[in-house]
Amino acid sequence: MNERVREILSWYGSDNPGVLTNLARLMNTGRLAGTGRFVILPVDQGFEHGPARSFAPNPAGYDPRYHFELAIAAGCNAYAAPLGFLEAGAAEFAGELPLILKLNNSDSLYGGTDPCPAVTGSVGDALRLGCSAIGFTIYPASVARNEMYGQIRALAEEAKRKGLAVVVWSYPRGSGLSKEGETAIDVVAYAAQIACQLGAHVVKVKPPTAHIEQSAAKKIYEKERIPIATLAERVRHVVQSAFNGRRIVIFSGGEAKETSAILDEVRAIRDGGGFGSIIGRNSFQRPKEQALEFLGQVMDIYAGKVK
Amino acid sequence: MNERVREILSWYGSDNPGVLTNLARLMNTGRLAGTGRFVILPVDQGFEHGPARSFAPNPAGYDPRYHFELAIAAGCNAYAAPLGFLEAGAAEFAGELPLILKLNNSDSLYGGTDPCPAVTGSVGDALRLGCSAIGFTIYPASVARNEMYGQIRALAEEAKRKGLAVVVWSYPRGSGLSKEGETAIDVVAYAAQIACQLGAHVVKVKPPTAHIEQSAAKKIYEKERIPIATLAERVRHVVQSAFNGRRIVIFSGGEAKETSAILDEVRAIRDGGGFGSIIGRNSFQRPKEQALEFLGQVMDIYAGKVK
Amino acid sequence: MNERVREILSWYGSDNPGVLTNLARLMNTGRLAGTGRFVILPVDQGFEHGPARSFAPNPAGYDPRYHFELAIAAGCNAYAAPLGFLEAGAAEFAGELPLILKLNNSDSLYGGTDPCPAVTGSVGDALRLGCSAIGFTIYPASVARNEMYGQIRALAEEAKRKGLAVVVWSYPRGSGLSKEGETAIDVVAYAAQIACQLGAHVVKVKPPTAHIEQSAAKKIYEKERIPIATLAERVRHVVQSAFNGRRIVIFSGGEAKETSAILDEVRAIRDGGGFGSIIGRNSFQRPKEQALEFLGQVMDIYAGKVK
Amino acid sequence: MNERVREILSWYGSDNPGVLTNLARLMNTGRLAGTGRFVILPVDQGFEHGPARSFAPNPAGYDPRYHFELAIAAGCNAYAAPLGFLEAGAAEFAGELPLILKLNNSDSLYGGTDPCPAVTGSVGDALRLGCSAIGFTIYPASVARNEMYGQIRALAEEAKRKGLAVVVWSYPRGSGLSKEGETAIDVVAYAAQIACQLGAHVVKVKPPTAHIEQSAAKKIYEKERIPIATLAERVRHVVQSAFNGRRIVIFSGGEAKETSAILDEVRAIRDGGGFGSIIGRNSFQRPKEQALEFLGQVMDIYAGKVK
Amino acid sequence: MNERVREILSWYGSDNPGVLTNLARLMNTGRLAGTGRFVILPVDQGFEHGPARSFAPNPAGYDPRYHFELAIAAGCNAYAAPLGFLEAGAAEFAGELPLILKLNNSDSLYGGTDPCPAVTGSVGDALRLGCSAIGFTIYPASVARNEMYGQIRALAEEAKRKGLAVVVWSYPRGSGLSKEGETAIDVVAYAAQIACQLGAHVVKVKPPTAHIEQSAAKKIYEKERIPIATLAERVRHVVQSAFNGRRIVIFSGGEAKETSAILDEVRAIRDGGGFGSIIGRNSFQRPKEQALEFLGQVMDIYAGKVK
Repeated sequence: MNERVREILSWYGSDNPGVLTNLARLMNTGRLAGTGRFVILPVDQGFEHGPARSFAPNPAGYDPRYHFELAIAAGCNAYAAPLGFLEAGAAEFAGELPLILKLNNSDSLYGGTDPCPAVTGSVGDALRLGCSAIGFTIYPASVARNEMYGQIRALAEEAKRKGLAVVVWSYPRGSGLSKEGETAIDVVAYAAQIACQLGAHVVKVKPPTAHIEQSAAKKIYEKERIPIATLAERVRHVVQSAFNGRRIVIFSGGEAKETSAILDEVRAIRDGGGFGSIIGRNSFQRPKEQALEFLGQVMDIYAGKVK
Repeated sequence: MNERVREILSWYGSDNPGVLTNLARLMNTGRLAGTGRFVILPVDQGFEHGPARSFAPNPAGYDPRYHFELAIAAGCNAYAAPLGFLEAGAAEFAGELPLILKLNNSDSLYGGTDPCPAVTGSVGDALRLGCSAIGFTIYPASVARNEMYGQIRALAEEAKRKGLAVVVWSYPRGSGLSKEGETAIDVVAYAAQIACQLGAHVVKVKPPTAHIEQSAAKKIYEKERIPIATLAERVRHVVQSAFNGRRIVIFSGGEAKETSAILDEVRAIRDGGGFGSIIGRNSFQRPKEQALEFLGQVMDIYAGKVK
Repeated sequence: MNERVREILSWYGSDNPGVLTNLARLMNTGRLAGTGRFVILPVDQGFEHGPARSFAPNPAGYDPRYHFELAIAAGCNAYAAPLGFLEAGAAEFAGELPLILKLNNSDSLYGGTDPCPAVTGSVGDALRLGCSAIGFTIYPASVARNEMYGQIRALAEEAKRKGLAVVVWSYPRGSGLSKEGETAIDVVAYAAQIACQLGAHVVKVKPPTAHIEQSAAKKIYEKERIPIATLAERVRHVVQSAFNGRRIVIFSGGEAKETSAILDEVRAIRDGGGFGSIIGRNSFQRPKEQALEFLGQVMDIYAGKVK
Repeated sequence: MNERVREILSWYGSDNPGVLTNLARLMNTGRLAGTGRFVILPVDQGFEHGPARSFAPNPAGYDPRYHFELAIAAGCNAYAAPLGFLEAGAAEFAGELPLILKLNNSDSLYGGTDPCPAVTGSVGDALRLGCSAIGFTIYPASVARNEMYGQIRALAEEAKRKGLAVVVWSYPRGSGLSKEGETAIDVVAYAAQIACQLGAHVVKVKPPTAHIEQSAAKKIYEKERIPIATLAERVRHVVQSAFNGRRIVIFSGGEAKETSAILDEVRAIRDGGGFGSIIGRNSFQRPKEQALEFLGQVMDIYAGKVK
Repeated sequence: MNERVREILSWYGSDNPGVLTNLARLMNTGRLAGTGRFVILPVDQGFEHGPARSFAPNPAGYDPRYHFELAIAAGCNAYAAPLGFLEAGAAEFAGELPLILKLNNSDSLYGGTDPCPAVTGSVGDALRLGCSAIGFTIYPASVARNEMYGQIRALAEEAKRKGLAVVVWSYPRGSGLSKEGETAIDVVAYAAQIACQLGAHVVKVKPPTAHIEQSAAKKIYEKERIPIATLAERVRHVVQSAFNGRRIVIFSGGEAKETSAILDEVRAIRDGGGFGSIIGRNSFQRPKEQALEFLGQVMDIYAGKVK
């Protein structure tokens, strides 16, 4: 097996071979197989934002099979979705690519500043659907954070015992933070650290801005002159905050935007030592051909085939 | 077996033969057997609204046997009710038609804007009563939604393992929404999506209005020019929102109203590709002969026997 | 066996012979054996109201054996009490009359408008004490109603599997209702319906007043001209609301009052088709001889020996 | 529902509605639906006798789908087979006809006079495969009989609780009996009684001969002049021995033989009040067209359409 | 995915996507990926025959890592071994190729004619080691066969629920058979049938001889003129006996022998429609280079690259 993949696996010395096998599957699949880089397709927006907001821009996406097909055709490392979307295609596409079952989800019909997703799947579901990993979102800074931390603790313990990898989406949000603070460099780095400390094998965070939210942190960032001027520098700091690069950290794309802007972001993630991207709306909301072209460009950047 | 029934079963590739058998039973019973269309009789109003409001208009309905008899005589696909009503007739009418045990119920003696039903039955109850499915109501937009999502998650996992189908009533209601929003097209489509993502085999929603509740959704509906002017168009959008028509979506009748208005609604559901109706008060609150005539008309519309 | 008893047992077709046997025991014991009518002695007031308020008027009642003796001597169908009172006499009076173990109880040392009793016994306790049934109180209209409904759901499932009958005290009370509403005809009928839907074999409610609490209900009572002027009419409506008379509904006596008032109430219950009374304070707070005379009068009314 | 079916169900008063529902399914399926008569296709010979002995005469039978198709096309009440054969078709034929999972099986690679089958499936398997019943073979007269009785006791208890019917093949065989004794009238009648006493809902025995095996029995048969001269008389006695006809008793066909001989046997079973036949080798070892014609003749006899 | 792989997966309609995923992994790995053919390396001889008998001919095999390396280098579909051998390499080689945990094993320190292996691993072990399947040996014809059938029944049920494939080694042996009978064509075909009926996804048997062991079978083979003269014909009959080719049947190599003899055998297995070989001693007892060359030749035959 590829040296880089082996190196990455060596960071997870407390994990059993089942977990390592599934981490290896994530790294040995698709166009980025063997590079230690990741492009994952996540489609939980139907649950999180509603069907029309998610799928009307490219109505093919109403069909759960579309996303399996897109992820496979694009050569993604994995496809992540809630229970229903995976149930609707896991048999038909069995063995095609690693699946990640999102075990909690929020909908947008009830608002509130402090998010707390519902638990919508189990480790048993992940096993019967043939998944390689469970996915779970935590919202540090929410009043309900401890409930989420407690849930992922128990789920991760069970998943690891049964050989599944654990992917944690760590999105600070809630009454503890300003809106700007959700992507502040100190907060995103902190979010990555929390996910790692909770035992995540793979952590997903948002690309951080240069804003510093917490005054206690600000003092240190300034005193120690931590470089955060460019996105690449900030990514480097986040990766450092994730156990000095010994945990896989990937970055979300967020809202749909211009292709060139995303590709710039991807270059910065790559240059900062980030492990990859998890790209939902920017993938499945484009017509399939455009999505495949776009994802190919992203993967080429990560693969070092283009500058 | 009928081609259409086989086609519908093919959408549930993650389910075991037990679940498929019970889904087939729902589709192979009654006057609509083999059409892939549904008319289900639900009688949980005694629990939800109280006995007089439910049964005084047609006092025969106080007797639990009446509803079994009505559903059988009318040729419904199934009869759905809470534990007590099923216990009071399941032996006498064993084998007559598929039963759906409603596993949670709300009463109206405690008000509040955010509904949270009590769990009033178990998967074990459903098995001992010979049911083909469990039923469960979720109220997206309620502050208690996550509790309901968590309950159905666990109940559905158990039901599926034991070969029972899962029917989810998805009724947005609560402090997250305006009253008008409960039946808004964006909200109903979203409610269907949530139920599907939670793993429902059959989803029940209310017929949507042309109102759009959420501003974030409104932008998309307008930008993408999603057709929602007629009920048929809105039904089509809801069906699309339920995994592009790969989950069974049926529509409730709501409050008792004029027969002609309901039949128009049924025609629109049929024309929009909806899978059928679940008609409670409009059935059992009429005298039996009138109810049978009315349900026959509804079924004829779904069967395509009349325009 | 008596035809009437067989008829009543025929309503419980989903239940196993163990449950039917215990229901038969309740109906074949005491002075009302074979009539399908019930007079049950309940003594949970020591827990609910405290010992002095309960037993000082007739200090013999401090002794748990007194209530067994009273129920046996009076010819009651059954004696219902919390764990401690039954443990204190179940051996000594084994086989004398059916026992009902009250599985939840509230005390009055902590107030609050929304009652939520503690679970104070188990189905296993009921079996080891030789009980024929479990008893459980629900308080519809309490903010904690769902917790109680969930508890009785699980306890009833277990009790039925193990052959015990299930008696539910259904007392609407809590922030969802006015004080007057607790005994309103619409509310009491609704409370009976809820208990039946939860799977109770025997339901206990309070004698209803002519007050109508809920405006949505009021419309129907007026429109359908449901007769509720006399207590007998109201009892008839409550019995109808309990699965059209296919569940056993008995009525509590409530606070101690004049004998003649109670006997009038009993006559109305009988004339309205109620199945009997559960009489606590009005029994055990009198001197024994008076209690026996009084209970004899009540039974004679139910037996049709007197008008 | 058919009166005869309701009458038969009324014999199973200790069973829950789930069991009654599945018994009704067995009786409401196929060409004999509603008659209270049964023709069941069992295919466990692949396990019991080996594949070539079972399927070489009609090689289509090597394919597990063939037997589903045969049972459906012939209009059988049910199809019974071991785990593997059901797993290989239960999804494809979901909902087509009731399935019976044979939970124990013997192979012929190890001989011995005292058979003791292996347990090869579970009640959970039966539920996930959508079966209506479990099947189990006991061999009274085997030294291992008590092990089998203990196994079916536990399996039947679980099956009944979960709403499945219990079918017991009762084949006396072992060191307690002569070869001739295996089909002796006293022994077959006794075998039927044992299966009923073990709680079977449906009992399968072999057509009895006029031989009487046990001397203690012989005295009574002679003294009481029990008529056993004709097969019809012997069937009548076996049915009487199965709780005076209040349990369903069906008869196996045994080794392949001449059609006319089997049809004579079927007439005798019918005339003696037997409930039907379970016909394996005589069905699936013929070419399909011949098998369908043959099974049609058998069903016509049971349906009373021919003499 | 390859059409042939999809076709094979379609035979397992009762299985969940987890099982299908692991079956796909077995078929999509190594030099035979996508062909639907298999060459699996099994190394349980250390347990079964002792270390010197197993590994002294090629002492590299004492090291558990050797066998992982050999299977990977050769391009095998999977590597099968007992708990200890897998524990000793599963982390180091995580993700390299599918693993099969042999859950039972016999040692040779206790003799006896009727083998009964010990259960030496669990489904939980298989999950924590990242295995794709469990393996289990049954010995039909052993007096202890029922114990083994019961063990694999329970283990297979659990494995399937948790998404693991089930591989059964079916080796008739014991006091029910002559030594020659262990590989008799009737016995091997029967052994394949038994494993399939027990619910195996993949069955491993020995190449059959033309001997017929059982007289009852002999009659049928002669009467039906089943072609068994050549090994290819016999393989065809065994595959037919495994659900008419709808279960994967692979053949063991047995004792070490001449390369040309094995390759002839492999050609016959291929020509008879067998799915592949499981080759232990003939692989790991040769020097590595020779083993790789040899396994390459075997795979080329299965891949149809050579005659």
